[in-house]
Amino acid sequence: MSRIVQKFGGSSVADADSIKRVAKRIVATRQAGHDVVVVISAMGDTTDELMDLALRVSPRPAPRELDMLLTAGERMSAALLAMAIADLGMTARSFTGSQAGVITTANHGNARIIDITPGRIVSALEEGDVVIVAGFQGVSQDTRDVTTIGRGGSDTTAVALAASLAADHCEIYSDVDGVFTADPRIVPKARHLTEISYEEMLELAACGSKILHLRCVEYARRERIPVHVRSAFTTREGTWVTDLRDDGTERPVIAGVAHDVGEAKITIVGVPDRVGEAARIFQEISSIDVSIDMIVQNVSAVATERTDISFTLPKTDSRAAVEALTGIQQEVDFADLLYDDQIGKVSIVGAGMRSHPGVSATFFAALAEAGINLEMISTSGIRISVVIDDQDVPRAVRAAHTAFGLDADQEATVYAGTGR
Amino acid sequence: MSRIVQKFGGSSVADADSIKRVAKRIVATRQAGHDVVVVISAMGDTTDELMDLALRVSPRPAPRELDMLLTAGERMSAALLAMAIADLGMTARSFTGSQAGVITTANHGNARIIDITPGRIVSALEEGDVVIVAGFQGVSQDTRDVTTIGRGGSDTTAVALAASLAADHCEIYSDVDGVFTADPRIVPKARHLTEISYEEMLELAACGSKILHLRCVEYARRERIPVHVRSAFTTREGTWVTDLRDDGTERPVIAGVAHDVGEAKITIVGVPDRVGEAARIFQEISSIDVSIDMIVQNVSAVATERTDISFTLPKTDSRAAVEALTGIQQEVDFADLLYDDQIGKVSIVGAGMRSHPGVSATFFAALAEAGINLEMISTSGIRISVVIDDQDVPRAVRAAHTAFGLDADQEATVYAGTGR
Repeated sequence: MSRIVQKFGGSSVADADSIKRVAKRIVATRQAGHDVVVVISAMGDTTDELMDLALRVSPRPAPRELDMLLTAGERMSAALLAMAIADLGMTARSFTGSQAGVITTANHGNARIIDITPGRIVSALEEGDVVIVAGFQGVSQDTRDVTTIGRGGSDTTAVALAASLAADHCEIYSDVDGVFTADPRIVPKARHLTEISYEEMLELAACGSKILHLRCVEYARRERIPVHVRSAFTTREGTWVTDLRDDGTERPVIAGVAHDVGEAKITIVGVPDRVGEAARIFQEISSIDVSIDMIVQNVSAVATERTDISFTLPKTDSRAAVEALTGIQQEVDFADLLYDDQIGKVSIVGAGMRSHPGVSATFFAALAEAGINLEMISTSGIRISVVIDDQDVPRAVRAAHTAFGLDADQEATVYAGTGR
Repeated sequence: MSRIVQKFGGSSVADADSIKRVAKRIVATRQAGHDVVVVISAMGDTTDELMDLALRVSPRPAPRELDMLLTAGERMSAALLAMAIADLGMTARSFTGSQAGVITTANHGNARIIDITPGRIVSALEEGDVVIVAGFQGVSQDTRDVTTIGRGGSDTTAVALAASLAADHCEIYSDVDGVFTADPRIVPKARHLTEISYEEMLELAACGSKILHLRCVEYARRERIPVHVRSAFTTREGTWVTDLRDDGTERPVIAGVAHDVGEAKITIVGVPDRVGEAARIFQEISSIDVSIDMIVQNVSAVATERTDISFTLPKTDSRAAVEALTGIQQEVDFADLLYDDQIGKVSIVGAGMRSHPGVSATFFAALAEAGINLEMISTSGIRISVVIDDQDVPRAVRAAHTAFGLDADQEATVYAGTGR
């Protein structure tokens, strides 16, 4: 008998009717002969509402207690879902993350899964139950306190559970039909992807795609769990995220175009070209716990022996970063600090670019033809990102989409895998 | 250092402001030098709202899952209260019933506390924390599932915790100042009681008083935990429920007058006066899990060799009882079944009646003078109850209250304890 882990997000269980609808879906899966474990998020906006309630009581809620409070949400939806499934004639049991054996670090609000010991889940499955697990939560290995797993927590829990249960695959349900070649709201001609590789999905997630969280994809890749991303509101096939080895089949050079308007750019002007200056700067940034995305440093001007360093970071962290850097201005002896939060990042992602020369040329030409200025460029093996003015983002995404033949009415530019 | 367990009911923590107010109260207790463990109910109407939500999903919610759902309420208030206390500069930690070591039977919705193993609470107290325990819940010894403890659950948890922690006493906070000689809403001249014995409180609770649940008082009596019932909204002394041994001090003959309008009366007319008939009747009632309160059977009429049996039961159980009895009418061969849900029960309670003759005479005379007809009479060692028309209840309570000198402007009829 096969075993499937399904995850349903908050919008899929926003109210009593939605819960009953999801219950029917789960029962159908079970009736098809599979063992089913469901990871469930809190209903609708429950987590936000609980957060608001916490802030009404305390301006800086104690982290351990905040986790105790927020986890009430998933507990409620898990119990309600189990009730609805029982009404349809199947036995179902809900478990908290702790009861399900999700062991984590003690880092409240952003705990990391250390291990999963799913003993009680396995027993319940052997008794024929549908198992519902409250997502987004676990228990700390050290303190035995309840923890929440941070953004993307429920998706990550689902994949981690799938791995620990040796499940056949993991289904992630949300309100979209899966992964598209670009955001359909910006690119009407975006195509739905039937499948995408772990590596490409990782890059898309890192570059702004909100479909799956980075951590979840990384876990899936590491554990080799196929992930089926699909809509809770239709029965259409979604997108399979799997191990697409280069096997000679033709694949599009570019899998998709991602964009991100949540970042800001900081430029440190006139940094002395001495050993250790860049290190000091990024040490300061990391000491205040800010994550940097792209870093660009050009060769220093021969005349001045100074260089400019630019980097991007989440907008929400910019104030803290600017303050920290201003604090070390004298020490590092840089000339100026520039800040721009009206930027956007556009990225093309595709395993094919490794073996297909000219991709960057095609990309930059398309942007130039659209009259778009490039402020920063950054690349990895299967991704090319540019930072541009945020107002240019929609045009840039559409231009790249068309340039690589991704539009629904085009033939995609393909490459043949190398059989590596 | 002394140790106190405090329990706050839902109305005391109905919103964010109330939570902060209760937090201040708890901090003051801690600052006075006591170890403090707080048992907390869900905020305001949360439990009812969760129940409504369950019923929107399922007409008959699976019991295990209903407990999983309902316990979210206490979890939330416990976490919020701990946050508020932390803001006032004290360390506080919240625990679920399970984490606090409240071990119960597996009877979902009405579990019984089997044991309390408060290891984590004791450790937290030793580290100087204020401990907050989610009330109304525990964990099943057999299944390790979360359970709710039924009506009066939080009060019972508090007293049980006090016993297991060898606490000095237990404070039960609600929105009333403690126990009065009668319901002040019916008897404006009702007096506030400074103290009352476990036995008298037990009777009052059994006879309709809603101040403390029967189970909680029984637990307190058995473990000899003094219980201080008081208001969360004032700092006035409440009522101490303790071991008032007969020590020669003068006490009022009657401690108080209770009333209950939640019962109905069933009369089985013309039951053959044979061995086993009454047994058959009450066996049938108990087989459908209905609790009987008062039973009255008169001697049979010599001529007919038949007798009437009347009993009272909760109104909510009457339909089931009537159906069950109708089902055995032929077997038992009784003549008729009468049903009356417009009854009320009025009871006078007092340890003094054991040694003070004439109490029933005084009681019945007062009722007669008020023109009130008695339908049933039932007594125990320290209680006399009458069943009357429910419209007569307020007058009956006031008449008894005055007859025993309990009115605020009177001298109470007293007795001297016998030193037993």
